[in-house]
Amino acid sequence: MRGMEHWLTKRAYLTPDNIAIELSNGETLTFAQLYERACEFASKLYTVHQNGHIAMLSNNSSDMVVAFWACTYLNVPVVFLNTRLTAREWQIQCEDADVKTVIFSDQYKEDVQQLTFKAYPFSEIHSFRSVECTLTTDMNLDSVCSMMFTSGTTGRAKPVIHSYHNHWSSAVASALNLGLMPSDKWLACLPLFHIGGLSILFKSVIYGMPVYLLERFDEEKVHRALMEHNVSIISVVAVTCSRLLERLGDEYYPTAFRCMLLGGGPAPKPLLEKAKEKRVPIVQTYGMTETSSQIATLNEAEALRKLGSAGKPLFSASLQIQVDDTTAEPNQVGEIVVKGSMVTTGYYRREQANQEAFRDGWFHTGDLGYLDEEGFLFVVDRRSDLIISGGENIYPAEVEEVLLSFEGVQEAGVTAIEDSKWGQVPVAYVVANEQVTADQLLVHCRSRLASFKVPKQIYFRDQLPRNATNKLQRHLLKS
Amino acid sequence: MRGMEHWLTKRAYLTPDNIAIELSNGETLTFAQLYERACEFASKLYTVHQNGHIAMLSNNSSDMVVAFWACTYLNVPVVFLNTRLTAREWQIQCEDADVKTVIFSDQYKEDVQQLTFKAYPFSEIHSFRSVECTLTTDMNLDSVCSMMFTSGTTGRAKPVIHSYHNHWSSAVASALNLGLMPSDKWLACLPLFHIGGLSILFKSVIYGMPVYLLERFDEEKVHRALMEHNVSIISVVAVTCSRLLERLGDEYYPTAFRCMLLGGGPAPKPLLEKAKEKRVPIVQTYGMTETSSQIATLNEAEALRKLGSAGKPLFSASLQIQVDDTTAEPNQVGEIVVKGSMVTTGYYRREQANQEAFRDGWFHTGDLGYLDEEGFLFVVDRRSDLIISGGENIYPAEVEEVLLSFEGVQEAGVTAIEDSKWGQVPVAYVVANEQVTADQLLVHCRSRLASFKVPKQIYFRDQLPRNATNKLQRHLLKS
Repeated sequence: MRGMEHWLTKRAYLTPDNIAIELSNGETLTFAQLYERACEFASKLYTVHQNGHIAMLSNNSSDMVVAFWACTYLNVPVVFLNTRLTAREWQIQCEDADVKTVIFSDQYKEDVQQLTFKAYPFSEIHSFRSVECTLTTDMNLDSVCSMMFTSGTTGRAKPVIHSYHNHWSSAVASALNLGLMPSDKWLACLPLFHIGGLSILFKSVIYGMPVYLLERFDEEKVHRALMEHNVSIISVVAVTCSRLLERLGDEYYPTAFRCMLLGGGPAPKPLLEKAKEKRVPIVQTYGMTETSSQIATLNEAEALRKLGSAGKPLFSASLQIQVDDTTAEPNQVGEIVVKGSMVTTGYYRREQANQEAFRDGWFHTGDLGYLDEEGFLFVVDRRSDLIISGGENIYPAEVEEVLLSFEGVQEAGVTAIEDSKWGQVPVAYVVANEQVTADQLLVHCRSRLASFKVPKQIYFRDQLPRNATNKLQRHLLKS
Repeated sequence: MRGMEHWLTKRAYLTPDNIAIELSNGETLTFAQLYERACEFASKLYTVHQNGHIAMLSNNSSDMVVAFWACTYLNVPVVFLNTRLTAREWQIQCEDADVKTVIFSDQYKEDVQQLTFKAYPFSEIHSFRSVECTLTTDMNLDSVCSMMFTSGTTGRAKPVIHSYHNHWSSAVASALNLGLMPSDKWLACLPLFHIGGLSILFKSVIYGMPVYLLERFDEEKVHRALMEHNVSIISVVAVTCSRLLERLGDEYYPTAFRCMLLGGGPAPKPLLEKAKEKRVPIVQTYGMTETSSQIATLNEAEALRKLGSAGKPLFSASLQIQVDDTTAEPNQVGEIVVKGSMVTTGYYRREQANQEAFRDGWFHTGDLGYLDEEGFLFVVDRRSDLIISGGENIYPAEVEEVLLSFEGVQEAGVTAIEDSKWGQVPVAYVVANEQVTADQLLVHCRSRLASFKVPKQIYFRDQLPRNATNKLQRHLLKS
């Protein structure tokens, strides 16, 4: 066992009075307070949690942070549910991830009733009596800390395992690249149920750094935080970055703001050029749930010279481009494969998927890219058919499956169209009986899919483009 | 196997043109140059190195740095020899550490002739032809990177094993504590054959940070580097710290200089107070060869409030005070025991010593100290009988052994007296036949011991203080 003192316990001992969490209403939690509340919550949660995993359903809040750390003190893996999904999707994910108990923020009381799992709102847990129980003192770094779902080309989302060591390695690798200033404060407006959000919590505790936590991306609140609250780093996706630049107008960010970490999909060049013009310290990054966030990041120093690149793999990570299982030449496009201690140990109980993804120690991302002569990564395309809409992943196969489940639909193909607000949105091409209408399909989708996954348009066709082996050719749908 | 791309290869890829080494004569080596020279040296060294460990005998120089990294490319553990020891001491250490080949800087040509090992000066290796050979691409973090000798109470120095993972963990833990600024430059004037020096090389490559490398501590050169060459961090011991403050006089260091890391033994309070007065950013630290350098460090922010403390254990390290194998109360003095991934896996081929030092996963330092109510470490005494003279460890038992080997000496006890220049110096108390003179003993010692270990005074006594079991009571020698 690779052990380490529990990070939050250690941090509360090292710098008890430093700020851990700062909210936009001015409230703060110190590391000592966060530690005390997490331990207290753990001693209450203990009474109801059964052996098995705990699913967490919540938008960003200090309650959610406390509840998460509480679970680590009980040494229970936390399965993060995306609040934007439907109850049907949560149910499937909980089953797939061996969840026994669901804990949630009170606003989801009604939705949660549709689940077959024991579910407790945060407020109810707070009202429990604390019981004596043994809380984790030394973490086993190889044990499972959290799980998050990522869709695959099969359409059914897969639970990605994150060990403590994955999160540790990710936080360390990021610090070695971005540096670590005593004045750092990281703004979190990405959902904590996504890796881009959650990873900030680990950085906070491991670095001893305050997180400026917002419930969600709110242009005005983020702008004000950057201008007035000494935020030094923020994680964004293209769509939020663009809106922030819009809001910035003729102003400039203060110099304390040193890094706008831009991930979650390809960044349009006009956006990068605009940022450059406004002297916004954009740091492009490439990563995914399976790599526990960043795996390659472009330094600001190179941002102008290598516009559009996602940089180089972080210090403890390795990255290659492979074509037919051999290493590609410079500038040759191939599959991006990665290795490193921040890379997931695998998908939970998906032997087949793991065999496909891990070969010779390399994780095969399915994304396409190339390395230039100097070794800078350019991502050409996310996994061929992945749609990224406002930072959320949509896998066409999942949407197609739902469409195909409607009586009278024979074939379905989903692809993306560009969207000025969300980057991409999904549209569907359908072969169906004449009785089937677009409205019927949309109603059907809305009851089964998170709204961001519901096609914005449905087009009826006589047939869909397929190759010789009859495989759907999604890239030809729009032609 | 826990693997990672070879650090220097990776660094040369990430930031090839950044400065790795800066010398006081203005010469520099970039990471790309350091990488190329190390690989070239490795391909030459390959022809003469036999299977087995390589001992390195050199004072600080860029040649030494190149030679060290070359050995890592051949995956050969490097046994560092202290240049201040005698040939007899080197011979014993090489035997104990399974050395097959010695490489050395040319100035030691004559001394090395007394060794029974194959030995090659750097200049000769440079003149070899490069041969085709396989250089390490992925490091096995669990393999042995280096060994350094530390004396024990048994008198015979023991080889401390440092794995790559030990060095990695040490560099990471230090960064998490001290922060990591893009402008950092670390001055190395401690010998690279000591852990306090060597650890700076790893930080340089892992952080991508220049090292300002001096052959030795030279008051004037160090002072000028701090004042004029943008050094931000320097590692010092009490005696060099004191001389620097003396040299500083009425001046003040520039603000870019952010950390004077003070280790290698207890720091006298008057020194700390003087530093405080001169606004010198002293950061006290506690560590030893076995912990791969720092294991506890006081932040500058607490430096004034906790004057004299060595701070708190670094993030990934644990530290306890034990009395009779149980955890001590706050303020209770006991043995300092430590745990963490920077702690050595053990002494090379010293089963007995390892059994004594490692119990229940804790490494027993033999040093005495206490933790105050807030958990700050105060080191009361280094291993009861350890003498630290100018940052060098002297174990009384080793000196006593040499004294006892002189015909006519019946008993010998060595202890320290305070010294304004070196902190401590050794003095000896001897029971001997009347024919034995102090001069004879000093000549005898000088031929067998490094000069810093030779007693400054020899006192003859009729008997030495011993306890009921006849164990020498060194602390009573002076009374």
